[in-house]
Formats: sequence, C-alpha cells, structure tokens
Amino acid sequence: MNPDPANTGKRSTEPTDLTVQAVIARRTSCRAYQSKPVPEAQVLQILEAARLAPSACNQQPWRFAVVREAGLRRRVVEEGFRPGIKMAWALDAPVHVVVGMERSFVTHRFMAFIAGVDYPWVDIGIAGEHLVLAATELGLGTCWIGWIRPRALAKIVGWPRSVQPVMVITVGYPDDSAPGVPPALRRKALTELVRWW
Amino acid sequence: MNPDPANTGKRSTEPTDLTVQAVIARRTSCRAYQSKPVPEAQVLQILEAARLAPSACNQQPWRFAVVREAGLRRRVVEEGFRPGIKMAWALDAPVHVVVGMERSFVTHRFMAFIAGVDYPWVDIGIAGEHLVLAATELGLGTCWIGWIRPRALAKIVGWPRSVQPVMVITVGYPDDSAPGVPPALRRKALTELVRWW
Repeated sequence: MNPDPANTGKRSTEPTDLTVQAVIARRTSCRAYQSKPVPEAQVLQILEAARLAPSACNQQPWRFAVVREAGLRRRVVEEGFRPGIKMAWALDAPVHVVVGMERSFVTHRFMAFIAGVDYPWVDIGIAGEHLVLAATELGLGTCWIGWIRPRALAKIVGWPRSVQPVMVITVGYPDDSAPGVPPALRRKALTELVRWW
Repeated sequence: MNPDPANTGKRSTEPTDLTVQAVIARRTSCRAYQSKPVPEAQVLQILEAARLAPSACNQQPWRFAVVREAGLRRRVVEEGFRPGIKMAWALDAPVHVVVGMERSFVTHRFMAFIAGVDYPWVDIGIAGEHLVLAATELGLGTCWIGWIRPRALAKIVGWPRSVQPVMVITVGYPDDSAPGVPPALRRKALTELVRWW
C-alpha cells in the first residue's frame, strides 16, 4: 500500500507500513494542502476502506460524492460550508469527499427510535474514519468538516431528498511548509473518560 | 504492538504488523469468544486509540465503562441489552466496553442544531471504531452492539444523567472453533455508493 512515487509529498516519503496504532497517533486535521492531485487509485483505496465499515443491521447508510473538479469544489466551499469560519484552505485540497446518509431505511430508523440510539450517525462516523485512517496510511492529509449547509451540498452533488449530507472530508497531500499550521489539539486523559470494573 | 505471547489465540498468532487497509479488511463482528482474559495493557492500548479520535470542536464527547467483572457483565447482557436477539455469546466476551456520550456540551449541541448534523453521534462512531481497529490489530475480536437499553446501562455503570450509553463493544480473543460462525456480511459495491466529479 505504498503511495504513488510520482506523488510523494513530504509526509508521504515517511514509511507507510505503520501499525493502526501508529496511524491513529499520526492523524491530525490537515488544513494546508499541496495542489497536486491524488491518484485515482488512492481515492479508490480510501473509498474501499469506507465501504467495508460495519453498520447497524448492515444497512450501510453511507453515500459518497467525490469532488475533484475545481469549479465544483469552489461551490462546495462557497455554498456548501457555513460562513464565519476561515475555509479558504479547503479550496486547495484536491479532493472533497461529501459524506451523506441514506435516511430511507425504515427498519434502521424504527430500531433507532426504540433503542434511543441514532445508529446511522454512528455508522457515518465509522465509515468516514475508515476513509481517514486509510488516507493517513497513504501519506495523505484529511480534515472532517461538519460546519456545512446540508441542503446546499445535496443540491451541488445532486443527491435525492433521501440522502442527507453529514460531513465533508478534505483529502490531499499535506503542505508542511505552510505557515501557522496549528499544533495537534489536546486530548482528555483516560482518567477523565474511563470507569473500570 | 505484538499481543502478549501468553495470551496468543488462534487469530493472534497471525502477523499483527498489518496495514490499516489489511486490518479494515480483516475486521468482522466476532460473536464467539474464548474465555481467557485480555491483558490490561491491551485494554489500555485500545482505549488510547479511542482517546486520540478527532471530534467536532475537539469536544471528545465519548466516555467508556470497561466491564470485566463477571457479575457486572451478566447484568450488562441481561438488563442492558434488549430482549429478542440471542446475546448469550456476549457473556463469553471477557471485556464489555460501554460507550457513552456526554451530552452536556452546550456549544456542541447548539452547533448541531444550526448545521443539522448531530456531531456527537458521529464522534462516538469515530472513537469506537478506533478502539475496534486497534483491537483487531492485536488479534482481538470485537462486536458493536447497539440493541441496548440506555437507561438500564447507565444505572449499571453509574453514569450521571448527562452521559447516555450509545453502544457496547464486546472485546476478547475469538473462538474460531465455535460452530456456526456466520460469514462476513455482503457490502454494497462502490458503484452503488459513490458519485464522481
């Protein structure tokens, strides 16, 4: 699973035969991208990782719109994101993956109502993170963007009413030379999160 | 990241220096477990993977209750799961990780309302799957169980009202000799899931 040598960026020259633990530790939200394209084989690889995700009742509610065309990426950023947060960096990312949720599964929704657990949202998180971790392994940077306008995004990518855009994941080679790359965010300690028996 | 040699089961004797793609391809829902315990170091490792997950506004809404004590595991299965589905196999799993969601983050919920995206559920999916993939890498089997009674589970693990149980993940060494282990579930083809530009 080595990245295309012709597309080797700064981070992707590092070894990519990492353990899951190492890939998880390496992943940060990437907000500075090189303009060079991501090879289609790699885009397919990360989509394949998402495709294999587990989901409640195996409903696979995830849908993906892969936007590489520059004009449409501009519309994703200018019309599909909410204003008020600096998102210009997202224009540099050569791939936008709009992650949508198919909401027409009656069983899924009925069971979610009964159990009080909104399974399709959880499933979207699982599948999207498969994509993110597979991309990280290939030396690609990613960023989950949730501050979106679902209706505008659905119109841009032509999804039917049953598919609700949930997130956009930007994908591309990180530009480590960009100024002001923020440090990784602090995480709570396990003692704050875990009870044991 | 090799498993404790003293706890090497059938699957865990296979190489664990797998790529993310290989771990994702290997993961299936495990519903037959050996009774031998999971070393605490491994439990900590998989919790650490979950801890490092990304989340909206870095709110880290996930909480974990790690249940290894046999009496309490019985209560998780008998009181915390919904009836009607065969769950006796879950009793054999030496570790139950109850995954909960802290719902007291006002900003998080306000933004979710504005954007129409229920971020904390997505975040739970991301963190839980970090745990699952890290466990798979260690040769452990896992199963996401969503058919739960949130209130009963909250009582069992003593969570405050602000923390809602969302899922239970069973963890343990797979018992590959168990009869009737179901095959991996079929996934939709990428052509059914993806639009391209």
